[in-house]
Amino acid sequence: GDVMEVFFFPDKEIPCKVHFLSETRCFKDSCKYSHRKTSLSELYRYLGSCRRSMDVCVFVMTCVDLADIVVSMRQRGVAVRVITDDEQEKITGSQIWRLRKEGICVRTDHSSNFMHHKFVVVDDQLLINGSFNWTRNAITGNQENVIVTNHTRVVGAFKAEFEKLWEQFDPK
Amino acid sequence: GDVMEVFFFPDKEIPCKVHFLSETRCFKDSCKYSHRKTSLSELYRYLGSCRRSMDVCVFVMTCVDLADIVVSMRQRGVAVRVITDDEQEKITGSQIWRLRKEGICVRTDHSSNFMHHKFVVVDDQLLINGSFNWTRNAITGNQENVIVTNHTRVVGAFKAEFEKLWEQFDPK
Ligand SMILES: [Zn+2]
Ligand SMILES: [Zn+2]
Repeated sequence: GDVMEVFFFPDKEIPCKVHFLSETRCFKDSCKYSHRKTSLSELYRYLGSCRRSMDVCVFVMTCVDLADIVVSMRQRGVAVRVITDDEQEKITGSQIWRLRKEGICVRTDHSSNFMHHKFVVVDDQLLINGSFNWTRNAITGNQENVIVTNHTRVVGAFKAEFEKLWEQFDPK
Repeated sequence: GDVMEVFFFPDKEIPCKVHFLSETRCFKDSCKYSHRKTSLSELYRYLGSCRRSMDVCVFVMTCVDLADIVVSMRQRGVAVRVITDDEQEKITGSQIWRLRKEGICVRTDHSSNFMHHKFVVVDDQLLINGSFNWTRNAITGNQENVIVTNHTRVVGAFKAEFEKLWEQFDPK
């Protein structure tokens, strides 16, 4: 079916990763995380739906939980590619070193300009895009938006942009 | 008809404002600006189509050309409202003081978190949204995206977000 959804941040609760990202639900009565739907849990759901390819093009990536999802996709055999900003890669808390350590291909802009996109293309058919960098503050602090869509032309445009930047940022 | 368009930055050329924003086209042979379509000229076109209301919710606003459009809308009697980030309002080159001087209502988050949205709702029926802050670097330097749509549910969600933040950031 057609997917066209909008989510706003900040969230008031932190979603339970077991509940929203594992095969089973979380049944811990004492779980301190939320089992209710939040904007982040919806983002987890869409990222977690990935089966074949994940093209991540995000300016800032310091959130451990979101980096975890990318790493677990790689471990499951998903073709993961990441584009980020070269200055942001070096900041405290950046998760890019972890992604590289896991063997994920990461390319950066090598420019003082910002590689300022914040989008993901999932399985060439779903776009996640908005103002949302992958930081803790974006989840529970800032005003942010994320649009999720499988609109063919829009997904295609972002996929083409990813491929263009992937070539442009080839270090060779 | 249905509007669902995607624009990417950086642009290679600076569009001629006379050509894209005035009633007539520019006929100067010696014009040093571009008369060809660019991502910014498309943004000009959509912003310029505004007739009744313009709700601007943008993190950074330092671009004089884009601030000019908001000011001219106000002067034409369009109901203009602006939400921005309180720290960004104070940075060098911020255009917020100009908007306030023209009598435009501006509200800010009064918080150390980021009011990080970058969207505009035009006439309650068109949404302009993406990674694009209103800066010079976003136009000719950075990698950025803008989605323009009149998708009813999406526009409605952003309009509701604007109204929510407008109340939330009421200084009274
Ligand atoms: Zn739980
Ligand atoms: Zn001209």
